[in-house]
Amino acid sequence: MVKVVILGQGYVASIFAIGLERIKNGEIKPYGIPLKNELPIKFEEIKIVGSYDVDKSKIEKSIFEVAKNYWPGKIPETLKDIKIKKGVHLKSLRNLPIEAEGLEDGLSLKEAVERLVEEWKSLKPDVIVNVCTTESFVPFGSKDKLIETIEKDKREEITATQVYAYAAALYAKEVGGATFVNAIPTLIANDPAFVELAKESNLVIFGDDGATGATPLTADILSHLAQRNRYVKSIAQFNIGGNTDFLALTDDERNKSKEFTKSSIVKDILGYETPHFIKPTGFLEPLGDKKFISMHIEYISFNEAVDELVINGRINDSPALAGLIVDLVRLGKMAIQRKEFGTLYPVNAFYMKNPGPKEMCNLPRILAFEKLKQWIGNL
Amino acid sequence: MVKVVILGQGYVASIFAIGLERIKNGEIKPYGIPLKNELPIKFEEIKIVGSYDVDKSKIEKSIFEVAKNYWPGKIPETLKDIKIKKGVHLKSLRNLPIEAEGLEDGLSLKEAVERLVEEWKSLKPDVIVNVCTTESFVPFGSKDKLIETIEKDKREEITATQVYAYAAALYAKEVGGATFVNAIPTLIANDPAFVELAKESNLVIFGDDGATGATPLTADILSHLAQRNRYVKSIAQFNIGGNTDFLALTDDERNKSKEFTKSSIVKDILGYETPHFIKPTGFLEPLGDKKFISMHIEYISFNEAVDELVINGRINDSPALAGLIVDLVRLGKMAIQRKEFGTLYPVNAFYMKNPGPKEMCNLPRILAFEKLKQWIGNL
Amino acid sequence: MVKVVILGQGYVASIFAIGLERIKNGEIKPYGIPLKNELPIKFEEIKIVGSYDVDKSKIEKSIFEVAKNYWPGKIPETLKDIKIKKGVHLKSLRNLPIEAEGLEDGLSLKEAVERLVEEWKSLKPDVIVNVCTTESFVPFGSKDKLIETIEKDKREEITATQVYAYAAALYAKEVGGATFVNAIPTLIANDPAFVELAKESNLVIFGDDGATGATPLTADILSHLAQRNRYVKSIAQFNIGGNTDFLALTDDERNKSKEFTKSSIVKDILGYETPHFIKPTGFLEPLGDKKFISMHIEYISFNEAVDELVINGRINDSPALAGLIVDLVRLGKMAIQRKEFGTLYPVNAFYMKNPGPKEMCNLPRILAFEKLKQWIGNL
Amino acid sequence: MVKVVILGQGYVASIFAIGLERIKNGEIKPYGIPLKNELPIKFEEIKIVGSYDVDKSKIEKSIFEVAKNYWPGKIPETLKDIKIKKGVHLKSLRNLPIEAEGLEDGLSLKEAVERLVEEWKSLKPDVIVNVCTTESFVPFGSKDKLIETIEKDKREEITATQVYAYAAALYAKEVGGATFVNAIPTLIANDPAFVELAKESNLVIFGDDGATGATPLTADILSHLAQRNRYVKSIAQFNIGGNTDFLALTDDERNKSKEFTKSSIVKDILGYETPHFIKPTGFLEPLGDKKFISMHIEYISFNEAVDELVINGRINDSPALAGLIVDLVRLGKMAIQRKEFGTLYPVNAFYMKNPGPKEMCNLPRILAFEKLKQWIGNL
Repeated sequence: MVKVVILGQGYVASIFAIGLERIKNGEIKPYGIPLKNELPIKFEEIKIVGSYDVDKSKIEKSIFEVAKNYWPGKIPETLKDIKIKKGVHLKSLRNLPIEAEGLEDGLSLKEAVERLVEEWKSLKPDVIVNVCTTESFVPFGSKDKLIETIEKDKREEITATQVYAYAAALYAKEVGGATFVNAIPTLIANDPAFVELAKESNLVIFGDDGATGATPLTADILSHLAQRNRYVKSIAQFNIGGNTDFLALTDDERNKSKEFTKSSIVKDILGYETPHFIKPTGFLEPLGDKKFISMHIEYISFNEAVDELVINGRINDSPALAGLIVDLVRLGKMAIQRKEFGTLYPVNAFYMKNPGPKEMCNLPRILAFEKLKQWIGNL
Repeated sequence: MVKVVILGQGYVASIFAIGLERIKNGEIKPYGIPLKNELPIKFEEIKIVGSYDVDKSKIEKSIFEVAKNYWPGKIPETLKDIKIKKGVHLKSLRNLPIEAEGLEDGLSLKEAVERLVEEWKSLKPDVIVNVCTTESFVPFGSKDKLIETIEKDKREEITATQVYAYAAALYAKEVGGATFVNAIPTLIANDPAFVELAKESNLVIFGDDGATGATPLTADILSHLAQRNRYVKSIAQFNIGGNTDFLALTDDERNKSKEFTKSSIVKDILGYETPHFIKPTGFLEPLGDKKFISMHIEYISFNEAVDELVINGRINDSPALAGLIVDLVRLGKMAIQRKEFGTLYPVNAFYMKNPGPKEMCNLPRILAFEKLKQWIGNL
Repeated sequence: MVKVVILGQGYVASIFAIGLERIKNGEIKPYGIPLKNELPIKFEEIKIVGSYDVDKSKIEKSIFEVAKNYWPGKIPETLKDIKIKKGVHLKSLRNLPIEAEGLEDGLSLKEAVERLVEEWKSLKPDVIVNVCTTESFVPFGSKDKLIETIEKDKREEITATQVYAYAAALYAKEVGGATFVNAIPTLIANDPAFVELAKESNLVIFGDDGATGATPLTADILSHLAQRNRYVKSIAQFNIGGNTDFLALTDDERNKSKEFTKSSIVKDILGYETPHFIKPTGFLEPLGDKKFISMHIEYISFNEAVDELVINGRINDSPALAGLIVDLVRLGKMAIQRKEFGTLYPVNAFYMKNPGPKEMCNLPRILAFEKLKQWIGNL
Repeated sequence: MVKVVILGQGYVASIFAIGLERIKNGEIKPYGIPLKNELPIKFEEIKIVGSYDVDKSKIEKSIFEVAKNYWPGKIPETLKDIKIKKGVHLKSLRNLPIEAEGLEDGLSLKEAVERLVEEWKSLKPDVIVNVCTTESFVPFGSKDKLIETIEKDKREEITATQVYAYAAALYAKEVGGATFVNAIPTLIANDPAFVELAKESNLVIFGDDGATGATPLTADILSHLAQRNRYVKSIAQFNIGGNTDFLALTDDERNKSKEFTKSSIVKDILGYETPHFIKPTGFLEPLGDKKFISMHIEYISFNEAVDELVINGRINDSPALAGLIVDLVRLGKMAIQRKEFGTLYPVNAFYMKNPGPKEMCNLPRILAFEKLKQWIGNL
């Protein structure tokens, strides 16, 4: 059994909840889940036990009610049992057309963390999955600085994700083991502050930023070129979509969160730097969750011949990430069982855009998958 | 030192010769050569010692003169030294606007083979590279049938490539070792007749059909999807180009040569069969050697979401293959030194569209590259 | 009021019937109908009074029942009233996985024509719309030859469409006016035999081959380039789909029907011939009615600069044609009222891929639309 | 004879000068020039008599020397005769890696204008072509405000283009007629201040912003959809390139110059507003002058079917505009001869992205071309 708590009951979390129940009910095939039903922990053993959000219109509703906004089909009845609790926002919804409400509105950070830990001790999750909206953040770097920020209630200097990850560490310490899956760009698995804390607290961290969309595909196409020693002259990659995440990225501050990411996949995969333009480009509401991607790559082949590739796609953003989460919660439980606390590169390298720990780089995904299978062992 | 004989002095062979000399002269970087200059055998050690063709307008000319038709730049002077000899055609240029002339016009097959072997004993190639025009062929299956066809001069039942491969085996036997690189679709490494003969004759065979163009990229993109357990609903892949090879493929008989290829990459990579349309589609002269490719892939992701990818490209056909040949001739020499006669899957799996031997299947190229590096050893 | 008889109750006819009823019911907007509700004849006045097919499994069923196979939504109840009658096939379904049955199985051609005319005199259609499967055909050229073929029952030398058009002429003569809309490639509006007959018989012919899919878009893009005097070097256009029409086109004989079409749009629009590859390319069942198109255009701009365009699309084939038919049946009635018998280029030039009469050529569609509006008058 | 002065000797002006001379020499065909050699004024009659720039490294050099930076071929010798004079910059190169120097550095605006008028009276141009770098600007709206700005030397409130256009009006008044072609986004033909001034001063203004790149193509594709009453749900259009203009647009202030443009082509062509994202997206140096464009359009067809189009292109930016300028200078001379002072919508509607005067809108380009031909008369 893997008990799961969700942080941020938006598109991804709703599709995760719906798809998981439909698979458990035998309604659909487990497409989009890399490890299928081949892990020792089966789909049937995954159970969502709690969910948090800060959107006033969601708090106290059931996942069943909220999920209706994200999927036109028949929502599984089992989702009626899970009520959405109030989380922390810390301005994570700033500039978005959403009325937010958080635990910290009436409490100090420290009290809010204590409240979360108390609730989790009652819900007993193995894995806590963070799928909040992209935040504007600054990594802490040192554990002391992180603790001081909480203690001194410096709420301007911390984001919701950072508070949740801190609470997860306290919770893990108390119960003897837990996993925090960070599927958004805020650096957690890449912030030594959190990794150090996790090691001391029996916390496993998976992160950062779930590897969906054009980036993993770009990584594999660049690997393809690199293996043939074709010299990449330039890379342009555009993304445009209509979900809340694209809306959030129209905010410059959030977009700047990319500044803290490690050197890009480009150098990691190619072995050299090359001019590139890779970033979310715009918000276009009618595209909904099915974003449009466009990528242009120009490279030099043998005898100075110049080739070009253009890749276009329509890709459903939330299901792609939701499918990965079905693996991540099971791998999270396995990591706890194996007591591999801290962060786990063999998992991160395949599932994350920015695989922690900080000093590690991006691998071609096809190779990362081989590494992952080795870690798992008996696949 | 690797001595090379070329069979078919067309686009690929000319670009190979030009590019190789330019690299040796330090004029250009070795882009498009997967193993770069990292093999124990260096670029500088590769030497073209002979070339064969059946186009009347090429025979007795130098590579220098012929190469002018394929590249607008300054052709290296060193290519003036190699005269093109008369090969065998066996109607390989049927329906093409080329006047052909072959050794077999005045000789029996057996005599033609003997002539080739004699010439090669004087040229002393380590590696014989077949880059003829795509042929309409039937594999032999058994060595006896192959030998009988030559002996009884059944010239309707054999192609130029098959005659060349047979001659290569006789030559290898006499000199103690040689490699035959088959870069076209005719089954050689996948025909047990030739593999058996090669083992007995100290011949290494690399084949079949150099892995250039859209197919290896398709393989890696399908691997990418398969690793995420996305279910591929359909694949369409078009190719159109303006070189002689596309012209040759407008001939139905040649296009049928695909019927003898093994089950497609689709099943090998995905693990299941799915509807697909993958074939060269047409000839359009102004595109020249830089073909246009278009690929559409539709797949099912988590919770039944349907995604689409469209990949377009302009890809120089001949340089892509020529770059691989720079590796294959060096690997061919290494295989002779290691006495690994027969055919070599770890090489074929990366470099060939249809990697022999017959019973082996297609691997994701990124994994094949890892296998290749293991075979080489000290990379 | 416009009364309509349909020939060929397949995908297009079913979507036409469904969409029309839904628009009349106010369920949906009239998107995809070029002239919207701006004609003197309103959508509400269009009434399907009869339908013909030769698929055994459809004959005697209602449109309601048949339409279920082509659309997953709620089929309008009004379609229960129209039973599908037996038409003529003349091997139009040859090589397709459909069991066919036609009037001519038990009758001479002449008798079959008489039967159709009798039935139509009872159904009283203003407009007869031909949306049969693409046929392999030879145009007649002369009216005498056409009449002789019917009289002498030379059923090997005539197609279903040609028989229907002949019957339409007899019917129009008897009732004083009717329109035959030929939406498939068989030449009717481009065959002087039929145009002459139509003029004598009070028949209006619209044809040939409804202008849907990539071709009209190609025409407008080529116009765009021509107006800037950009020299088009080459054009490649691929189409692949999964409906019966694509399946039918895998039959070489049918594909040859293109041989009889007039000089292509390329020369008509550009004013010069240029190398091009434009044809349906393949059948891929999972694509269904939503075909994938890919087009590559390379052209020369000022100072010899070379530009490239690649257009990809997913386009629903049948709705595109069905939307045009909503206009064509209304224009057909208007043409009868105006007694413009024969064929009408101002209508054909916008709505047809191969606008008749034979001596007329393709116009940029945007200009053709202006011509159409002039013909209509008060738009 | 048409005498031409160029403002801004960058990429466009250099390609214009080179291509024009090559055409006059019979070296190349006049591709990319919409009206070919069919105007009463022939290519041979166009003569560049002067050129201005503010890049210190260009001033006092000949066009021949400067043009080398923009084209690898043989530069026509005739371009050695034209020396580049110092223009005005007014911070138009702010934030660009270029050292600028302008007449206004040592003079008041009024004096700088007088200097320009004096020089032009000696060079005697018929047509003054503005192809400066994109500027950050505010339109004047009223002639009085414009005059006051010059008189009072408010140099913070005016751009180089606005100063040039003002000088052109003074010059035209003195010599009895001239044309100012504004090929960049700064509003001149759309600013009533300049149009009023032009009418009083015998000046013809063509503008604003030469219609090259993806926008005119988008306009024609949208027209195509609109004529079929397909409802466009969303439009995304990306552009990325490596020339100075793309570099300039990475500056937010310049990009804001778009705020002053009229309601977009989307509404003008479709007749309704629809969500769209259309703007230059980024700078990628290796793409050079050959930008990459990507466009996604989703629309509703008959019976609620949803179709998609994706258009990708590699388009040479400067030759596209240079080709239009060959027409514009000839049309400019014709307009002077016809005394059609002020601004000319029939010319602007085809050649300009933002056709003046202010109150006029965008037409489908194919229709605009018909209007243009009517204005010209005897084509």
